[in-house]
Amino acid sequence: MIEDLEMSNALLPIGFCDLLPSDAEAEASLVQWIMSAFNDYGYERVSPPLLEFEQSLLANAGSGIAEQTFRVMDPETHYMMGLRPDITPQIARIAATRLINSPRPLRLSYAGPCILVSGAKHSAARQILQAGIELIGVDSPQADAEIITIIAAALAMEDVLPSISIDLMMPQLANTIIQTESFDEQQTKILMRALDRKDVAAVQKYGGGLSGILTTMLQAAGPADRAINMLKGLDLPQEAQQIFDRLLTVVEAVQAHNPDLQLTIDPVEFRGWNYHTGLCFSVYINGVSGEVGRGGRYLSDNGEPACGLTLRPDLLLPLINFDEHIRERVFVPFGHTIQELTSLRQDGYILIMGLTADEDAQAEACRLNCNYILQGKELQAVAE
Amino acid sequence: MIEDLEMSNALLPIGFCDLLPSDAEAEASLVQWIMSAFNDYGYERVSPPLLEFEQSLLANAGSGIAEQTFRVMDPETHYMMGLRPDITPQIARIAATRLINSPRPLRLSYAGPCILVSGAKHSAARQILQAGIELIGVDSPQADAEIITIIAAALAMEDVLPSISIDLMMPQLANTIIQTESFDEQQTKILMRALDRKDVAAVQKYGGGLSGILTTMLQAAGPADRAINMLKGLDLPQEAQQIFDRLLTVVEAVQAHNPDLQLTIDPVEFRGWNYHTGLCFSVYINGVSGEVGRGGRYLSDNGEPACGLTLRPDLLLPLINFDEHIRERVFVPFGHTIQELTSLRQDGYILIMGLTADEDAQAEACRLNCNYILQGKELQAVAE
Repeated sequence: MIEDLEMSNALLPIGFCDLLPSDAEAEASLVQWIMSAFNDYGYERVSPPLLEFEQSLLANAGSGIAEQTFRVMDPETHYMMGLRPDITPQIARIAATRLINSPRPLRLSYAGPCILVSGAKHSAARQILQAGIELIGVDSPQADAEIITIIAAALAMEDVLPSISIDLMMPQLANTIIQTESFDEQQTKILMRALDRKDVAAVQKYGGGLSGILTTMLQAAGPADRAINMLKGLDLPQEAQQIFDRLLTVVEAVQAHNPDLQLTIDPVEFRGWNYHTGLCFSVYINGVSGEVGRGGRYLSDNGEPACGLTLRPDLLLPLINFDEHIRERVFVPFGHTIQELTSLRQDGYILIMGLTADEDAQAEACRLNCNYILQGKELQAVAE
Repeated sequence: MIEDLEMSNALLPIGFCDLLPSDAEAEASLVQWIMSAFNDYGYERVSPPLLEFEQSLLANAGSGIAEQTFRVMDPETHYMMGLRPDITPQIARIAATRLINSPRPLRLSYAGPCILVSGAKHSAARQILQAGIELIGVDSPQADAEIITIIAAALAMEDVLPSISIDLMMPQLANTIIQTESFDEQQTKILMRALDRKDVAAVQKYGGGLSGILTTMLQAAGPADRAINMLKGLDLPQEAQQIFDRLLTVVEAVQAHNPDLQLTIDPVEFRGWNYHTGLCFSVYINGVSGEVGRGGRYLSDNGEPACGLTLRPDLLLPLINFDEHIRERVFVPFGHTIQELTSLRQDGYILIMGLTADEDAQAEACRLNCNYILQGKELQAVAE
């Protein structure tokens, strides 16, 4: 493998990249917009470090991320430190330690890069960007609905992004239903696999007395209103009914906050939700394969109830057209001082200072992609 | 060492920290302000990755940072990757590869975290934040002056930061002067050490025919106008005179751009400037020990002339009082929807949503540090 790889200084490891001018600016603006929306609803920013001791990084909610974590030894203590692959466990740690005495519900937000040992299904990226919120200390459908609503508000950028849809899942639901029948371990495994594969025929074959309920649940997957109508007709076991009723309350609350938000429900989805304890959400957007955000209800450190969602602003970058917001550039011929240019700068122009007296201002302005040249106190358009 | 360290999940490695709400927000705002000022003058943002192959990270301008670089093995290629301790060498790489065909002068900016193996003299921090600019492809005093002027503009935050001062150094000057006399290696070493220690007596004792010049240079260190007056009277060797003349041109150009900027000159300082080839700058600010930014003229990859400066916004954080800019918080009792609150949000209020119907709104508002409660469509001040 090494032999084939011609090393040059331009080569970056797979999954890492340089963001060049307009993309780097667009990403920073996007994060700024999202964080500002989070802040509008009282989610206060915290910023944990990129590296911390493996022992704390991978404790509790972090235990699932061990195999995605690069480690280095701390020369000070000889303990291993991990390079975070995910920020959420760090937020749980902060909530349970430094902010343990802050009033609940605790609303926190964060944004920053994470490093993965290997790329994920839909993306080879190993440096990813996360921006998210956590609502810690309260377990209620209103809290779940707040998270969904605020994520939708943060992504409501009409002129730059297509509208999003949020998929709601109850990873405990299928298992809760299946446990009401006395299937043996092997039957349970077959049935769960059939549900995971959305294999209606197999569900009908192996579902026993639950075939009808489980088939309807499979077929209900889709837009929230339709799914709810189909699920409402089912005679669910009591515990499953409670999970479903909670979903109903969340959907009603979200729709009250934001009637236009596209919600879908996937009643039998459970894969990939390991430490979550209630409703889970994935965020989708036209033009990006795979989810652009995910989250749900879980137990934070110290067993505090919590709900959160993490967006991946880096995945949105290809969709965003910031061209309309690009500022016009003015070539300022040599001899002007920055002090004279305050009003142009305040008017939003980008100022490109000429550095030598003998240059052809018109040619320089053109070469440096400027829209105008400053002539005396006037702006003169650059000939194309 | 390990025995004494009681591990708890709240413990972070020395030099790493959690930024809590108001600090994390202040740091993000500060970076946003600085980057926006850089952008005003055409410095376009690029964003290189946190990790890259050791071979490219430590090539050329990066060779000085090897011992501050943590490494991990890339499981894909089995090559070593380094966690960047500095962004400037990455910018040089980008300029010489992906942006090699972009018109010169190339004006680039960057901001992001870096990781050091061990803390520096004035700070134990091992995760540091850099924000800087590089002006690549031109070697002139006007280019040096532009860098200084724009750094000053980016830090001109009258209501939050004390004013800065910028110290100008010519690391080649002392050596250039000493080489005009036929000192042997030992004498040269003694004399350079005396200059480094600002030891006037030793300089007079060992300086031979240069004692007068070197003593005056030592004594000239201080405010730029005074220093220049003292240095102007010296009969410098030709090459040294050229270095000094260039300094004069830079100072004049900076003063034309910004007459109020505090400039100092340290004519004999050379320590710590290894790969720089011309004028160097340190940025100081009252209340922070050590420099808050540094940079100067160097050769970028491919031997392109370049000048740049890197700020450390994290060091400015203790100085900044963002309290005046904190937005007022409104407690919104349960039952309101986010849709109804658009105008309050647009007016700049932070909205804290009540999550249950049975709570005492007044008590909740007070407990959650809100300034107002929404009553119907009116804001009612919260009793202290």
